[in-house]
Amino acid sequence: MSQLSQGHLYVISAPSGAGKTSLVAALLKQDAGVEVSVSHTTRAPRPGEQDGVNYNFVDISSFESLIAEGDFLEHARVFGNYYGTSRSWVQQRLASGQDVILEIDWQGARQVREVEPDAVSIFILPPSREALRQRLESRGQDSDEVIAQRMAEATSESSHYSEYDFLVINDDFDEALVALQSIFTSQRLRTPVQQKRHQQMLAALLS
Amino acid sequence: MSQLSQGHLYVISAPSGAGKTSLVAALLKQDAGVEVSVSHTTRAPRPGEQDGVNYNFVDISSFESLIAEGDFLEHARVFGNYYGTSRSWVQQRLASGQDVILEIDWQGARQVREVEPDAVSIFILPPSREALRQRLESRGQDSDEVIAQRMAEATSESSHYSEYDFLVINDDFDEALVALQSIFTSQRLRTPVQQKRHQQMLAALLS
Repeated sequence: MSQLSQGHLYVISAPSGAGKTSLVAALLKQDAGVEVSVSHTTRAPRPGEQDGVNYNFVDISSFESLIAEGDFLEHARVFGNYYGTSRSWVQQRLASGQDVILEIDWQGARQVREVEPDAVSIFILPPSREALRQRLESRGQDSDEVIAQRMAEATSESSHYSEYDFLVINDDFDEALVALQSIFTSQRLRTPVQQKRHQQMLAALLS
Repeated sequence: MSQLSQGHLYVISAPSGAGKTSLVAALLKQDAGVEVSVSHTTRAPRPGEQDGVNYNFVDISSFESLIAEGDFLEHARVFGNYYGTSRSWVQQRLASGQDVILEIDWQGARQVREVEPDAVSIFILPPSREALRQRLESRGQDSDEVIAQRMAEATSESSHYSEYDFLVINDDFDEALVALQSIFTSQRLRTPVQQKRHQQMLAALLS
């Protein structure tokens, strides 16, 4: 039966300050069927980081081989380090029945959509510029210039929300969590998914 | 703002004994944004039935005029009486922002899909033949023959589940209600729906 079950692939993006990390953490806590993808990277592990948990740490030649094999759902090079999501890693998790979330930006999301058009994409937005500014300011004692820069980056990322299947506005955290959960719950109710999951039951019911 | 909001049209079907009526009643109780369509009919009101509440009671010539105008999303003639769902009636409710449920059988659902391909269709099934039999038997002291006939009808209706977008299996009532609610909640999160609903907020956020 579990061989017939198959998790679903999700892409979740948001500007900094939208509360994505907290929402996804709360979702994982209440829904054992969901997990976050572990990315591959060529950057060195930082103290405390565990291979296979925080990242899959690989060397540059391994990463470039995986690129050549077309194994990445999305990848990017940032300050000389590669980061990417391995298709075979994700497929393995989906095959075990888990839903897998990729927490990536709009550029990564575009790459994923290209190769996995069935991925369900979700964008999370803060409820207003004021809320966004407060959340970005409360992160520390930063200069107005730094805050302005972050606001500009967040606005730029936010402008891509319309490329996503679902839009969750994180005004009240609990309501946003209910909203996010409803997307995952309802995807499992799609008839082709239920047909696979309940194949024997359906055959017996209709016999 | 409310002019920009627009409810969504749902079709819910199930065999007798699946618990559809109880599930829909519980959904309506907890979600004020959902209502059940009031059908038009030419049959006479029964004692206690109210026009506009249980049915929209109309005479045969009015009903046939509406058919001629193409106003019915679906209609059928049963024992000489017409029953149908008026498109203009439904449109009015959707325009007010309410989600509208049509509780109809697979034949009506096919008619609706033909004219309203965006309607979201949901099928509800009992978890097993045994559960179905128990639910059909518990309705009264009926003969084996009557029960067998109901089982056959329920199995026949059930065989159309795969034509629906979503399949809810009503094993545990509370879980089935959560499942049903998640479909309605998640549809409201679709980006085009959110764009209409939060047009001003989005414009301000991205300015």
